[in-house]
Amino acid sequence: MRDFLESAGTFARYMPDMTAWRRHLHRHPELSFREERTAAWIADKLCEIGCDEVRTGVGGTGVVAVIRGAKPGPVVALRADIDALPIQDEKDVPYRSTVPGVMHACGHDAHTAALLGVAAHYAASRDGLTGERRLLFQPAEEVTPGGALGMIRDGALDGVSAIYGVHLWTPLPFGTIASAPGPVMAAEDEFFLEVRGKGGHGGMPHETVDAIAVGAAFVQAAQTIVSRSVDPLEPAVVTIGSFQAGTASNIVAEVCRLSGTVRTFDASVRGLVQERLRAIADAVCRQFGAEYSLDWRDGYPAVVNDEREAERFFAVARRLFGGDAVQRIRPLMAGEDFAYYLKRVPGCFMFVGAGNEDCGAVYPHHHPRFDIDERAMLSAARLLTAMADDYAGEAASVA
Amino acid sequence: MRDFLESAGTFARYMPDMTAWRRHLHRHPELSFREERTAAWIADKLCEIGCDEVRTGVGGTGVVAVIRGAKPGPVVALRADIDALPIQDEKDVPYRSTVPGVMHACGHDAHTAALLGVAAHYAASRDGLTGERRLLFQPAEEVTPGGALGMIRDGALDGVSAIYGVHLWTPLPFGTIASAPGPVMAAEDEFFLEVRGKGGHGGMPHETVDAIAVGAAFVQAAQTIVSRSVDPLEPAVVTIGSFQAGTASNIVAEVCRLSGTVRTFDASVRGLVQERLRAIADAVCRQFGAEYSLDWRDGYPAVVNDEREAERFFAVARRLFGGDAVQRIRPLMAGEDFAYYLKRVPGCFMFVGAGNEDCGAVYPHHHPRFDIDERAMLSAARLLTAMADDYAGEAASVA
Amino acid sequence: MRDFLESAGTFARYMPDMTAWRRHLHRHPELSFREERTAAWIADKLCEIGCDEVRTGVGGTGVVAVIRGAKPGPVVALRADIDALPIQDEKDVPYRSTVPGVMHACGHDAHTAALLGVAAHYAASRDGLTGERRLLFQPAEEVTPGGALGMIRDGALDGVSAIYGVHLWTPLPFGTIASAPGPVMAAEDEFFLEVRGKGGHGGMPHETVDAIAVGAAFVQAAQTIVSRSVDPLEPAVVTIGSFQAGTASNIVAEVCRLSGTVRTFDASVRGLVQERLRAIADAVCRQFGAEYSLDWRDGYPAVVNDEREAERFFAVARRLFGGDAVQRIRPLMAGEDFAYYLKRVPGCFMFVGAGNEDCGAVYPHHHPRFDIDERAMLSAARLLTAMADDYAGEAASVA
Amino acid sequence: MRDFLESAGTFARYMPDMTAWRRHLHRHPELSFREERTAAWIADKLCEIGCDEVRTGVGGTGVVAVIRGAKPGPVVALRADIDALPIQDEKDVPYRSTVPGVMHACGHDAHTAALLGVAAHYAASRDGLTGERRLLFQPAEEVTPGGALGMIRDGALDGVSAIYGVHLWTPLPFGTIASAPGPVMAAEDEFFLEVRGKGGHGGMPHETVDAIAVGAAFVQAAQTIVSRSVDPLEPAVVTIGSFQAGTASNIVAEVCRLSGTVRTFDASVRGLVQERLRAIADAVCRQFGAEYSLDWRDGYPAVVNDEREAERFFAVARRLFGGDAVQRIRPLMAGEDFAYYLKRVPGCFMFVGAGNEDCGAVYPHHHPRFDIDERAMLSAARLLTAMADDYAGEAASVA
Repeated sequence: MRDFLESAGTFARYMPDMTAWRRHLHRHPELSFREERTAAWIADKLCEIGCDEVRTGVGGTGVVAVIRGAKPGPVVALRADIDALPIQDEKDVPYRSTVPGVMHACGHDAHTAALLGVAAHYAASRDGLTGERRLLFQPAEEVTPGGALGMIRDGALDGVSAIYGVHLWTPLPFGTIASAPGPVMAAEDEFFLEVRGKGGHGGMPHETVDAIAVGAAFVQAAQTIVSRSVDPLEPAVVTIGSFQAGTASNIVAEVCRLSGTVRTFDASVRGLVQERLRAIADAVCRQFGAEYSLDWRDGYPAVVNDEREAERFFAVARRLFGGDAVQRIRPLMAGEDFAYYLKRVPGCFMFVGAGNEDCGAVYPHHHPRFDIDERAMLSAARLLTAMADDYAGEAASVA
Repeated sequence: MRDFLESAGTFARYMPDMTAWRRHLHRHPELSFREERTAAWIADKLCEIGCDEVRTGVGGTGVVAVIRGAKPGPVVALRADIDALPIQDEKDVPYRSTVPGVMHACGHDAHTAALLGVAAHYAASRDGLTGERRLLFQPAEEVTPGGALGMIRDGALDGVSAIYGVHLWTPLPFGTIASAPGPVMAAEDEFFLEVRGKGGHGGMPHETVDAIAVGAAFVQAAQTIVSRSVDPLEPAVVTIGSFQAGTASNIVAEVCRLSGTVRTFDASVRGLVQERLRAIADAVCRQFGAEYSLDWRDGYPAVVNDEREAERFFAVARRLFGGDAVQRIRPLMAGEDFAYYLKRVPGCFMFVGAGNEDCGAVYPHHHPRFDIDERAMLSAARLLTAMADDYAGEAASVA
Repeated sequence: MRDFLESAGTFARYMPDMTAWRRHLHRHPELSFREERTAAWIADKLCEIGCDEVRTGVGGTGVVAVIRGAKPGPVVALRADIDALPIQDEKDVPYRSTVPGVMHACGHDAHTAALLGVAAHYAASRDGLTGERRLLFQPAEEVTPGGALGMIRDGALDGVSAIYGVHLWTPLPFGTIASAPGPVMAAEDEFFLEVRGKGGHGGMPHETVDAIAVGAAFVQAAQTIVSRSVDPLEPAVVTIGSFQAGTASNIVAEVCRLSGTVRTFDASVRGLVQERLRAIADAVCRQFGAEYSLDWRDGYPAVVNDEREAERFFAVARRLFGGDAVQRIRPLMAGEDFAYYLKRVPGCFMFVGAGNEDCGAVYPHHHPRFDIDERAMLSAARLLTAMADDYAGEAASVA
Repeated sequence: MRDFLESAGTFARYMPDMTAWRRHLHRHPELSFREERTAAWIADKLCEIGCDEVRTGVGGTGVVAVIRGAKPGPVVALRADIDALPIQDEKDVPYRSTVPGVMHACGHDAHTAALLGVAAHYAASRDGLTGERRLLFQPAEEVTPGGALGMIRDGALDGVSAIYGVHLWTPLPFGTIASAPGPVMAAEDEFFLEVRGKGGHGGMPHETVDAIAVGAAFVQAAQTIVSRSVDPLEPAVVTIGSFQAGTASNIVAEVCRLSGTVRTFDASVRGLVQERLRAIADAVCRQFGAEYSLDWRDGYPAVVNDEREAERFFAVARRLFGGDAVQRIRPLMAGEDFAYYLKRVPGCFMFVGAGNEDCGAVYPHHHPRFDIDERAMLSAARLLTAMADDYAGEAASVA
């Protein structure tokens, strides 16, 4: 630990606080859009830390803090998400969740603590700071439509030139830092198809419209979206996750309900998949004489890193952590509403390795025993700070 | 009514009793294999009537009565089924079911009453009677494996040369009588397929075996059984009645459960369909690398009328009811365990029109408002008697 | 042979002529609608025989002869078909075809000879004959749209009360006679589907519309017509006989050409299958964004025997040939334009067993070594005559 | 032109020769593995130029030249392909092909001329040259199994430390240079599936095994390879390019022949697709009771650029042509046997823009009017030289 802290330089002094903060949050998780006590606690901490401005109620339960540097420069935003999940904490640790059925099983507690550490660091180094830092504590990353849009609507991005965010990531070992140019997390949409045929006697199919036959044909036809209609160089997934129809072996099912998820990275591919799904549902139902309703629900768009900001990431991360620690990450098929920020301002979303067998951080995200190597918070805080400072420095030198 | 009774000759005297009996049974229905009070009541009546022999506990709750004629001749069996259905009686009549959720919604009460009428008739005319009549009051026609097999196991068919049975049938108007040579009711089997794939992340299908994709492919492949593998001149139906898989839109389903019904008339077609279903399930699961279990449950075989006995039906029925009343029935896609008797001895299963708007007999069988034109009982009793007597007379004259 | 001839009574005297006539025709076959020398030869024979009227050029190359009986009565028609097939005769017999690539491989030569025998019989027995006999020598049974419609258009059925026809049938052994009430031969239609997608680079499917994917989806969807849409009690077949698409492994096919055949017995089922095929082709192409043209070509409708005339057949045939010789035939999945006559007047189409290992009559119809047991001509002539006479006798007795 | 030549420095002096050479080759194209006169001509030129070693008959009709620099250093290989295509030249230019039906429609003539220019340059600058340059003039790039493997077998890569190659590319405008790390061209395999069912009467499908039904089921099942079995982040294509079955609308097809192409970039995905195709063919045929043979033909593997060499490309190309000229190319779904070299030694395959409306270079590769902006040869020669020299310089400095 000592070596690690030493390499972290003066930032290391915030490690005990960050750890305490994270554990407090871990003990007191709140679900998406209900992070009221969490938000109040964050705001208190930010005030204690001495931010120049602390705004609560942003986009619902969001909190925004501002620290202004002595030197003129751009506004750079850093974001943490603050909500927990409806999962029962099964860990046996002192900081285990005290709320039955609710748990920080994705690391948002650590994101929040790390960003508080960043706040403390900046509050203590305003004199050398170029430009303004805006710290976004965002609610409800775990449920669509997510908290980012509300924050944006409430002005969280107004005047911001660049934005950075991190995800602590247990599939990556602690010590590893990763990101990539372009898409790093998928757009994630849902659809719900209800096919309405005509039920009837299992021995007299000619007097029915067999909703199961229609549903099965839809499932097969939907395979061609990815296999034939999408550019093979563009990743896309269409998964039908549920198929519920019929109640008895000898009655033709009247209704068939299917639901599915679509994952894409490119906006035009996302549109194409939706269009093809609609065309296939329509054609297959028409083929059998069935009726249907198709409900498409937009999830988050893809998280697409700016090319230049991704280059900045590689340069900054190598400098901070050494070349061997830095990886180009393969895109993840899961979504993040950080995507909405990146559609408005350039930035980069980054992954900080948090897996470590030695401290039980071996479970995947959303697992009831999920935990992290807490040192990853320090890496996260240093990375966010360095990215922001590098950006601001570059912008100021150009200006 | 008077005309009708007159045409029925001396048999008409049993009409009031049959009506009373039927209404008693209608008021006190019992479910399949639980017809204990029904059986005791039937046995009492048969003793009152003065049968030569009354045996209870045949094949569970079945009753067998014997009446021996003065003249030597063959043993001819006549069968009624005695069980009711788990349906709430919604009729508003004095003889409405007194048992909540149980109802004679298929006419078995009338079959029983008619056969009691036959018993009374034979008991009163032993002197002119050729051979023996054996009256089978069979339990549990409504649920597989049915009551017929137990009756047969307990000797109900021993020594029997021919057997006849009827179904009162509301889709046919009262006054109509119908049957056909060969198959008249379908073999009706069930199957249950459980596909076990490998569940997983909806965005990462390559790490899963998608049980819904397997199930849908099975449904489509199963269509070829009837469209390609079965002789087009042989009726067959394969219906998948239920398809249950998956719990969420964004998780690949691990398990898919399907159930279905198979209807056939020919034994070799029945075997072929089962064989093809097994081959398809095996191949489709193998194709995707899924595991499966397929549970095939034999239902009743097809009711196949003997050619000569069907000819006898047409001759006898025309004589009794006139040529215009008699129809050749199209095979029905439903099943009947009378089939088991016909696999052992020649005979004929016949349909007696019982529909009549004037007395509310307009609902299909198994409907909560199902009722019959009760006069059909008289037609049924006359038909059964005449068939048996014709057979016995012919057999005696040959001997 | 002697026994057989004896049982044939006075009709046996025509056997040598019929044999000679059949062999002459066999040696000189002519293709459908080109039976010019055949027709002239038939007309000559009919004049020699002394018919009351001989009309040529009926419906193209058809011939109609009339013989009027001394007693008043109805006009009864009997029909033979006269065309041969584009098949090379590979038999080694003295009466082998002398025309390269053309052969009487279906027995029409024998149908014609038998009907000439009937003509001779009637011409010799006018005094005892009730009503008129009209003998139809019809061209072009082998190719749609067939010769029957032209004969009808030219008045061949005008005033006719009943019509009978036979097919000598080698799958049935000589000595057997068969028919059935209702449908005995199928309606036989063709369809041609051309799918037009958008060809392109095999590695870039997203820039194409893959005509093979469309065609394959059509083939699978078409299976549901028989498996789900047609009444299971109504025989129907949809076969896609050819599927031609693409020229190279690495180019997405632009065009896919499919052709198929549809067999049905019931007119409404025939209409339903066509309607479903059109709906499926439309929906499947729409699903993929392909264009298509679907060409449906009506073939002959089903041959549907009148119920009463079929009863007459059973009675007449049993009388003539004995009960054991007479069978109820299963419907055949092939077609016959005798169907058109039966749509206009009652009648019966009958099958006369002509198979016999001893005389090499073991090949199926349309086989290059097809031959018949020639005695079947005598059975055919007797059957046709007896049917006509029975009908006429009944009609006269009623009048 | 002058500006362009000036920017090319001393290399520009070889432009007239390269142009003449290319046009000579264009006039005298030879097909794959038959490049005998071409090879002899190349060898002559290389001798004239004064290479240190010229070896012919390498891998059939290949030629290898060696130039040794004064300074010690690694052996660096540069490769050109020399074969033409079976296409009729439809251009109207003085250097049009003189061989009917054979044409340099892919730019290999220019690759060869550019590499001859490189030879001339090196021969004239041996004193400043670090290490050895080996120039590979490879036959038969256009047809699998290709000429690269034979060259390698005959030692062309022995002792080689790095290899570079270019493709002049008309879809990119002249002035553009592009490449990428990792896969840039696809593995391209073929398969041929012959399904053997059991033909028969179109109206009697139950006596057949319908090869078209099997083929269609295979096409549909094959869609799931890409949609379900392949990692969505790994590009893959399975295209069935041809489907030939059946000869008549009314006969069930006995045989169905399909062929297809598979494109992948990752070796394990390539293996997976083959494995899935085999499993699907086996399962689908087993499902219907059909037999089959599946012939898989390996094409070229993917062209996978070394990460470091791709970085070198970006650095070198930006230095030579300016940052705006240099692009990261999206992987191409076509193949190249340069792949085999890169499986053995590090290197980079690069694309040199050769499209230009002004000189008619607007047609895609393999088009009968294909032509290039010949200045692209100079870019190609400079790029190859600079890559080799940069590599050698770096290697020497490390050593």
